[in-house]
Amino acid sequence: MTLLALYNGTPAQALPLTSRALAYGDGLFETIKVDGGRAQFLSYHLQRLRLDCARLDIALDEAVLCSEIAQLLTQQPSGVLKIIVAREAVTRGYFAARGAPVARLLQFFPQTFLHDDPRARLGVAVRLCRQALSEQPAFAGIKHLNRLEQVLARSEWSDAAIAEGLMLDRAGRLIEGTMSNVFLVREGTLYTPRLHRCGVAGVMREIILTQLALNTLDVVQADLLPADLSAADEVFLSNSVIGIWPVRKIECLHKPVGTVTLTLQEKLNCLIANESS
Amino acid sequence: MTLLALYNGTPAQALPLTSRALAYGDGLFETIKVDGGRAQFLSYHLQRLRLDCARLDIALDEAVLCSEIAQLLTQQPSGVLKIIVAREAVTRGYFAARGAPVARLLQFFPQTFLHDDPRARLGVAVRLCRQALSEQPAFAGIKHLNRLEQVLARSEWSDAAIAEGLMLDRAGRLIEGTMSNVFLVREGTLYTPRLHRCGVAGVMREIILTQLALNTLDVVQADLLPADLSAADEVFLSNSVIGIWPVRKIECLHKPVGTVTLTLQEKLNCLIANESS
Repeated sequence: MTLLALYNGTPAQALPLTSRALAYGDGLFETIKVDGGRAQFLSYHLQRLRLDCARLDIALDEAVLCSEIAQLLTQQPSGVLKIIVAREAVTRGYFAARGAPVARLLQFFPQTFLHDDPRARLGVAVRLCRQALSEQPAFAGIKHLNRLEQVLARSEWSDAAIAEGLMLDRAGRLIEGTMSNVFLVREGTLYTPRLHRCGVAGVMREIILTQLALNTLDVVQADLLPADLSAADEVFLSNSVIGIWPVRKIECLHKPVGTVTLTLQEKLNCLIANESS
Repeated sequence: MTLLALYNGTPAQALPLTSRALAYGDGLFETIKVDGGRAQFLSYHLQRLRLDCARLDIALDEAVLCSEIAQLLTQQPSGVLKIIVAREAVTRGYFAARGAPVARLLQFFPQTFLHDDPRARLGVAVRLCRQALSEQPAFAGIKHLNRLEQVLARSEWSDAAIAEGLMLDRAGRLIEGTMSNVFLVREGTLYTPRLHRCGVAGVMREIILTQLALNTLDVVQADLLPADLSAADEVFLSNSVIGIWPVRKIECLHKPVGTVTLTLQEKLNCLIANESS
């Protein structure tokens, strides 16, 4: 499946057993779209990784990581770059010494992207997952490697017509999709769930909040409920690989592909074009 | 660090990048004491693994695992056997297809055990961790690979005089140690936290509840609070490698090494001796 990978800068097909990613999920990851030979929004991904490393006290050498990314992406025009940074075991057991060695694993998955993806144009059908997210403020927002909740939620369905599952926290609040963030539009205001109790604060979510919606939309990060989906004029999903996907159906609830969503998509395309130029 | 490991029956120093243990912590583990050439309470560990696999829908071939354990333990008299079972990736993403391939990783860490360990005889000092456990009934009791909470909790202290940290859930209930279960004795009754919201249901905990306390002690699995530690006559910790350790100090609270704890230790030693004979 993996065609290309670097472990601490060296081509690799395997990970040493000393990785605490394996033992405890003691690390972080980034999933980055590579198109036209360029890692999209790389500075945002590095910024998020830097902040998450600080929260988990992971001592990442970012300069070395950047040179390895450049090394891996040489002659890779299109696909997904996955970065994992994880502590290495020095002794057996949970204790992570300050300044413990940190390994970098880069994987590249070649993929051709449709430049007129029908999911982006016509919208997707989603479901509500039964698996709830637990509340853990210590890790809320972080893209860490403890992802069993997402695994169980995503494994609830195999119908290819359902593109994503929305997840609630244990109190019933709407939080995110299994692999995306979720946005609602109502009366011209953009709403997205607060992620201080659980959830992953995606890079595309950050770009929407800080760049695409800027000066044009009121933006509210709020506690939202499934009932807010019914009340919304438009609903869309975001992540770094898919960009923005309108939601046209949630269970049996139909939604239009609305003008706010389409405008944000256009702005995103402009931003990507400007970044590449 | 690892001297011996088998990956799907083959000697290994590394794990293929297709392991979902690495990507998502999508797997389970067991930590088993090996003494006198024998894996202690192996049938209990296999039983727990079987139940946990059923809960996560992991299709483990137990017969093959058992033959690999025998293969690894040949000529290994003393140490810790760690078993990891984890789903393999077939495609990128969280979805775990039913019947997805499952890999077995066995690691052996040679270690000599003191047969008169002062921690077992004199008791240990423990602390209360700041890092709380989130409530996730879907995984409660399971020894899965998503262990960031334990990593952060165990990394709160580096003082070697502190043997363990006790963890509370987010509502303030006492749940477990970072690597052990916790028991309280009060007026001849044995109490241990209920583990239906979070926590790991350890094999040694199971042995204490179903074997060692049988017919001699009233046993209550209850919601406990830190205040119950103050009120307890005796407190002890358990896990498969340490057995039973009396707690002589919790933060600044002193506890005696009591007769109930010592009696349970003696019974455990008899059970191990009988198992080996």
